[in-house]
Amino acid sequence: MSTAAENILSNYSADPPGVIGNLRRLLNTGGLAGTGKLVILPVDQGFEHGPARSFAPNPEGYDPSYHPSLAVEAGCNAYAAPIGFLDTVARQYAGKLPLILKLNNSDSLGGPADPHSALSGSVHDALRLGCTAIGFTIYPGSEHRNEMYNEIRDLIAEARDAGLPSIVWSYPRGGKLIKDGETALDVVAYAAHIACQLGAHIVKVKPPGANIEQSEAKKSYEKVPKETLAERIRHVVQACFNGKRIVIFSGGPAKGTEAVLAELREIHAGGGYGTIMGRNSFQRSRADGVAILKSAIQIFGK
Amino acid sequence: MSTAAENILSNYSADPPGVIGNLRRLLNTGGLAGTGKLVILPVDQGFEHGPARSFAPNPEGYDPSYHPSLAVEAGCNAYAAPIGFLDTVARQYAGKLPLILKLNNSDSLGGPADPHSALSGSVHDALRLGCTAIGFTIYPGSEHRNEMYNEIRDLIAEARDAGLPSIVWSYPRGGKLIKDGETALDVVAYAAHIACQLGAHIVKVKPPGANIEQSEAKKSYEKVPKETLAERIRHVVQACFNGKRIVIFSGGPAKGTEAVLAELREIHAGGGYGTIMGRNSFQRSRADGVAILKSAIQIFGK
Amino acid sequence: MSTAAENILSNYSADPPGVIGNLRRLLNTGGLAGTGKLVILPVDQGFEHGPARSFAPNPEGYDPSYHPSLAVEAGCNAYAAPIGFLDTVARQYAGKLPLILKLNNSDSLGGPADPHSALSGSVHDALRLGCTAIGFTIYPGSEHRNEMYNEIRDLIAEARDAGLPSIVWSYPRGGKLIKDGETALDVVAYAAHIACQLGAHIVKVKPPGANIEQSEAKKSYEKVPKETLAERIRHVVQACFNGKRIVIFSGGPAKGTEAVLAELREIHAGGGYGTIMGRNSFQRSRADGVAILKSAIQIFGK
Amino acid sequence: MSTAAENILSNYSADPPGVIGNLRRLLNTGGLAGTGKLVILPVDQGFEHGPARSFAPNPEGYDPSYHPSLAVEAGCNAYAAPIGFLDTVARQYAGKLPLILKLNNSDSLGGPADPHSALSGSVHDALRLGCTAIGFTIYPGSEHRNEMYNEIRDLIAEARDAGLPSIVWSYPRGGKLIKDGETALDVVAYAAHIACQLGAHIVKVKPPGANIEQSEAKKSYEKVPKETLAERIRHVVQACFNGKRIVIFSGGPAKGTEAVLAELREIHAGGGYGTIMGRNSFQRSRADGVAILKSAIQIFGK
Amino acid sequence: MSTAAENILSNYSADPPGVIGNLRRLLNTGGLAGTGKLVILPVDQGFEHGPARSFAPNPEGYDPSYHPSLAVEAGCNAYAAPIGFLDTVARQYAGKLPLILKLNNSDSLGGPADPHSALSGSVHDALRLGCTAIGFTIYPGSEHRNEMYNEIRDLIAEARDAGLPSIVWSYPRGGKLIKDGETALDVVAYAAHIACQLGAHIVKVKPPGANIEQSEAKKSYEKVPKETLAERIRHVVQACFNGKRIVIFSGGPAKGTEAVLAELREIHAGGGYGTIMGRNSFQRSRADGVAILKSAIQIFGK
Repeated sequence: MSTAAENILSNYSADPPGVIGNLRRLLNTGGLAGTGKLVILPVDQGFEHGPARSFAPNPEGYDPSYHPSLAVEAGCNAYAAPIGFLDTVARQYAGKLPLILKLNNSDSLGGPADPHSALSGSVHDALRLGCTAIGFTIYPGSEHRNEMYNEIRDLIAEARDAGLPSIVWSYPRGGKLIKDGETALDVVAYAAHIACQLGAHIVKVKPPGANIEQSEAKKSYEKVPKETLAERIRHVVQACFNGKRIVIFSGGPAKGTEAVLAELREIHAGGGYGTIMGRNSFQRSRADGVAILKSAIQIFGK
Repeated sequence: MSTAAENILSNYSADPPGVIGNLRRLLNTGGLAGTGKLVILPVDQGFEHGPARSFAPNPEGYDPSYHPSLAVEAGCNAYAAPIGFLDTVARQYAGKLPLILKLNNSDSLGGPADPHSALSGSVHDALRLGCTAIGFTIYPGSEHRNEMYNEIRDLIAEARDAGLPSIVWSYPRGGKLIKDGETALDVVAYAAHIACQLGAHIVKVKPPGANIEQSEAKKSYEKVPKETLAERIRHVVQACFNGKRIVIFSGGPAKGTEAVLAELREIHAGGGYGTIMGRNSFQRSRADGVAILKSAIQIFGK
Repeated sequence: MSTAAENILSNYSADPPGVIGNLRRLLNTGGLAGTGKLVILPVDQGFEHGPARSFAPNPEGYDPSYHPSLAVEAGCNAYAAPIGFLDTVARQYAGKLPLILKLNNSDSLGGPADPHSALSGSVHDALRLGCTAIGFTIYPGSEHRNEMYNEIRDLIAEARDAGLPSIVWSYPRGGKLIKDGETALDVVAYAAHIACQLGAHIVKVKPPGANIEQSEAKKSYEKVPKETLAERIRHVVQACFNGKRIVIFSGGPAKGTEAVLAELREIHAGGGYGTIMGRNSFQRSRADGVAILKSAIQIFGK
Repeated sequence: MSTAAENILSNYSADPPGVIGNLRRLLNTGGLAGTGKLVILPVDQGFEHGPARSFAPNPEGYDPSYHPSLAVEAGCNAYAAPIGFLDTVARQYAGKLPLILKLNNSDSLGGPADPHSALSGSVHDALRLGCTAIGFTIYPGSEHRNEMYNEIRDLIAEARDAGLPSIVWSYPRGGKLIKDGETALDVVAYAAHIACQLGAHIVKVKPPGANIEQSEAKKSYEKVPKETLAERIRHVVQACFNGKRIVIFSGGPAKGTEAVLAELREIHAGGGYGTIMGRNSFQRSRADGVAILKSAIQIFGK
Repeated sequence: MSTAAENILSNYSADPPGVIGNLRRLLNTGGLAGTGKLVILPVDQGFEHGPARSFAPNPEGYDPSYHPSLAVEAGCNAYAAPIGFLDTVARQYAGKLPLILKLNNSDSLGGPADPHSALSGSVHDALRLGCTAIGFTIYPGSEHRNEMYNEIRDLIAEARDAGLPSIVWSYPRGGKLIKDGETALDVVAYAAHIACQLGAHIVKVKPPGANIEQSEAKKSYEKVPKETLAERIRHVVQACFNGKRIVIFSGGPAKGTEAVLAELREIHAGGGYGTIMGRNSFQRSRADGVAILKSAIQIFGK
C-alpha cells in the first residue's frame, strides 16, 4: 500500500468507503501509481471549442477511441470526457482506465450571456459507464453562480451517495471579471478554495499569474511570496485546505514542449498534485503526445 | 445479417440490447435494409410552418394517413412526426413501419425570442404508440442552450432506459449566429459534434456550405478540403466521432428534382449515412413523391 | 348506434376505450345526438371578462345553476365551465349533461404581459366532478408558448390515462400577432393544426376571416378558396387532419340573432363539426337563449 | 329528471359528484331508466365455474361480444364482467352501456382453503375501459375476512377518488358457516349490512331463506316477519341502512322461467332494488334470454 | 398487409398501438409470417428441469446462442427464455427475432409445497433486452392462486403501459388436482379461459385429453364433441373467447417425430393458433431440430 496515496486519502475522512475506493483507483493507476500525484487526460475540447479547432492538428483525435488509448499508452491516471465520447469507449476501458464523466459542458456557438455550462450527463450515466469520478465546471464570477453552485451541491451529494468522488473545474469567469483577472493569483486561489468549500474531492484550476485582481485583497497579498510560479502554486495549494484537498493544474492553450514542461516543473516544485493536460498532448502526433505525457509523469514522479 | 448494419451497431457498445434492437429495425427496414443507410420521411412541417405552407402543394398531405403510406410505398426506413399525426396512424403502422416521435416542436406563430422548441410528447407516448425512436430538436447558438441540452439529456436517458434510441435534429440558430453562419461548415460540423457528445444515436443536420463562420476556427480549416459538398460532408462525418455516430442530412426547402438528387449524390459520396426528406417528397404528387424517395434510396443503396 | 358518430370515433384509434366512451357520450347527448355534430355551452366569461360584463345583460346568469339548466333545456351536447361554477352544479348534472372542466383561465385584471392562462383545475378535479372531458386554452403566438404546450402535453397524457378526452381552445394571440391577424385564415388554420398536433381530441377556434397574415404563407393561399366563410371553414377542417379531428367554432362577441345564425349556416356548410356558443345565448333572456341554441342545433342537425 | 332515481341518489350525500354521476348513469339506462330499479347482466361465470359449465347451454355465450349485445337488446342497466371479457368489448360499448369491472374473481380449480377471491383488475383498468363502477366480492365468514375487507377498503377509496361507485357482491361463505347457513335470513342480512358498513354503494346478495343460522340471533328474529320471500327481502333492505343503500338480489342457479319470475316478484314486493341475472338469461337462447330479462324489467318497472 | 394477421389484431381493440405493434411483429416474423399462426421456441427447461435433463440429449443446447440461432434457421415466430439466457443473446437478436422474456420460473430443487413460480425478471428487463412480449406461468389449481393472479394482473398492466403484450402459460396444477386431471378437457379449457379473463393476449396450454375431471362439469360436456384431439382443440379455442384470443399448444414431453407432427395436425385442424415446441426441437440434433420445426411451420401454414 502506498503511504503517499494513503496519506492523501486520510484527508477525506467524512467520505464513505466507496468514494475512497474510487479515489484510490485514481491514485493507483498508471505511471504515477502510488505517488499521490496525477496526470489526467481530458478531452472535452470538441464540445467546448468545436471539432476542427480541437482535432484538425491531429485528425486521429476525431475518433473517440484514440484518446483512452493514448492515456493508457502514456500511463495517465485517468481520462475525462463528455458522455458521447465515453459512450463509445466505456465498454472497452471501464475497469482498466479510470474514466471521469464531465457532467456539464459549454459550446462556443451560444448559451446564456454570462457563463453557465449546460448539464450534459448524470451521476446515473457515470455509474452506467463504469466511471471512477464525475467532473463539473463552475465559473465563479458569473451571474449564474447560484444555479451552478446549487447544481454541483446536488451532484456531489448524489455522486457521494453512489460512491463516486467529484472533480471540480473551477474557472473564474464572467460578471465583472476582466480577462487578466481570471488568472490573477488571488482570483485563482479564491476559485480553488470555493470548489473545496463546495465539497470537491479534486479541484482543477489554471496556473496563476503574479497579479492581484481584487483591490480589497491587495493588502493581504503583500507578504505572500508570489514571484515564481512555484510560489504561487504553493499559495493555491495552501488555499485548498492547506493541501488537504487535491488540486491539479491545467496547461492552458497548446504551446511548445519545453514551455509546457517548464511550467509543470514549477507546479511540481510548488506542491501541486499534478496536471490535466489535453490539447498539449492530443493535438500532437501520437508519438509526441505520448512523449509529452510521459515527461509530465516523470516530472511528478520524482 | 447485414454486415454493414451490424458494423454500425457495434459502435453503440454502451447501449442496452433494446436500443440496439430498435436501431437494427431502423437499419433493416425498407429499400435500404441492411445497407447501413437511411432515408427517413419526416412530416412536422405542418406544426413548424403551418398546414397550408406544408400541404397546399399536394393537398393529400392534409390527411395524416397519407404520409406513412407514402413512406411504405417508397421503401423509407422510417416516418417521423409529432404526436398528433402519429396518434392517428400508429395502430395501423406500429410494428410495420418504424415510427419516430418528435418530442419537441416549434411553430412560426410565436414562442420565445431566441429559439427553443416546446416539449410536445414524452418517452411514454413513444412506447404507447409503438415507436422505434424518439426525435428532438436542439438549437446550438440559442440563449436557451442550457434548457434544451438539459431536456435532451433527460430524454435520452429515459428513452435509453426504455430501449429507445434518440435522434437529434441539430440546427445552429439564434444568439449571435447570422443566417449564413447557420450552414457554415465549421458551424454545422460543430452542431453535429455537440449532438453526438450529448449522446444522440443519430444526428440530423443540414448540408454545410463552404464558408467558415467562427473567426477562431478559420485557421483550423485551412487544410480541411471543403470545395465540393462531398468533401464538406466527409468533414461532418468526421466530426461525428469519425463516423462512429450516424449522421444524416436534410435536403432543406423544396427544389427541383435534379437539384435534390445531385445533392444526395454528394452526401453519399462524402460518406453521409442518408437523408431525411420531407417537403421535397410529400409536396410533390404521390407518384412524384414516391419517385424521388425511390431515387434517393437508389443513390444511397449503391 | 349512430353511424355518423361511430365513424368519427374510428379516427381516434390510439385512444383507450375510456376516452372513446366519453367522446361517445358527448356525441350522443342532446338535440344533435348521433349526428356527429356538437353545440356546446361554455361559460367562462365571468372569469375571463368579469361578472358584470358577462351577466348584467341577463342577471339570471350570475347563478351557476342557470347555465346547465339552459344547456339541458336547449338540448346542448355539453356544458363547459371553470371549477367554481362546476363545483356548484356537478352533483345535480353529472351523468346527465356532459360537463367539461376548463383547466386554465385568464382574467382581465392581471397576469403576464404576453398571454398565458393560469392553471385553475386538474384532471383529478374533472374525475371528482364527473366530467366528460377537460378543456384547456393555448395562445399560439405568445412568448409563453413553451410553458403552455408543456402544460397541455402533460394534461392530455394524464387525462387520457384517466379515460378523459381533451378539448383545446386555440386562440392565436400575443407576441408579434396584431389584432386582425388573430383571425386571419392562415393563422386560424395554423392554430387549429397545432392543437391537433399536440394531441387534442376536439379543437375550438374562431371563424376565420379572409385575410392572410403571414407573408410567407401568402403564396400557399393563392389557390385556396376563401371568399365565403364556408370555404374558409372548409380549409380549417382540412387543416385539422383532413377532418379526422373534430373542430368547432365559437361565435365570438354577442351580436344579432340573424347574424349568429347566418354564421352558423356557413360553418355547417363548410363541414365544421359544430359551435360553442356562450355570450350569444346566456346573455339573452332565457326564452331567447333557448331559442337561439335550438336554432343552432337545428342548423347542424340538417 | 326522475324523482325516484334522484331520491335514491340523495342518500349518497358524502360522495363526490363523479360517483353520483356514475350512479345516475346506472339508474338512468335501459328499460328501468328513472325508476330507481336495476336489472344488471353479470357474466363472470366462465371465470368462476368454467367456460363449458357457463356457456355450453347456449354456445353463443363463449363469444364476449354476445353478452353486452344481449344486455342492450333487453334493456339492462349495466353489464358486469372480468377484465378479459371487458377488454374485448369496451371500445364498442363504453359510453353506451354502463360497464362494471369485477376486480376480483375465484375459479373452481384451486385457491386458498377458505374462500378469498384473487385480485384480477384495478381501478385504473376501470378508467381505461370507460367503466361506470367497480365490482368486488367479499366472503363474510371466511378466515380471510381481514385481507378481503382491507382490499375493498382500499379499492372503494381509490374508486371514489376517481369518481367510480363500488358494487359489493357479499356472499357469506367459509369458516364455520354450513351450506344452509349461507342463505339464512340472519346471515344474508348481516352480510348485506357489512357491505354497506364497508362503504359499498350497491350491495348484491342472494335471496334469503327463512332459517336463522346464528343461535345468538334467534331471539332477535322472533318478531321479524319472515314467512314469505317478500318479507325476508324487506328485512334485508332494512339491514341495508333502512333502504338508504341499494341492494339487489341474484337469482342463483339456472331454473325454470316461472320460478325465476315468481322470485323476482317477491323481491320487488319486498322493496328490493332489482336483480342481477346471469345464468338465467345468457344460458337460454338469445330470444329466451331477452324475454326473461325483459320480464324482469317489467316486474321492477311496475 | 396480411388480412389473417390484421383480423386477429382487430380483436385487441382496447390495447394501445404499442401492444398492437409488438403483436404484429410476432405474427409477421418467420415462416408463418402473415398467416395468423405461431410456432414459438421456448427454452426454460434448464431452469425448470435442470441443465442435464434438458441439454444432455443435444449438448449444443447448453450454449445460450444455440437456441435463437435454431429459431431463426427454422423460421420460428419468436424465442422465449428466462432473463439469463436472453442476457447473453439479446444484443445479437433484438430487432431481428422477437424475444419473449419469461418473468417467472420454477425449479425442481425446491419451492413452495403447492406450485407457485418465482418472479425472475421484470417489465423493465423486457424493455432493456428489446423483447417483444413478456411471458408468465400461472398454475390454476394451486393454493397460491391469489398471489399468482395478483402478480400477473400487475405485470399485464405494467407491460401494456410499456407497449408489450403478455403471454400466459396456464398449467392447471396443485391443490386437489390429480395428475390426470391436469390435462382433462374441462380443466384445460377452464385454465385457458382464466388466462384470457385475466387479460392475457396469448395463452399457452397443453393439448387436452378426452377425460372430464370436475364432476360438476360432466353434464355440460355431454354434447361437446371430444373424441378427436381436433375436436378438443376446437373446444379450447372456443373457451378462449370464441377464438378472439390467441391460444397455442405445447407438445409436452419429447416423443417421436411422427407423434409430434400428428398432434400438430390435429391442433391445426381444431383451429389452434400454433404451437410452442421446446424439448421436441432443441433436444434433437440441429438438423433434426430444424426439420421438425419446419414441419410444424408447414403444417400451420396450410
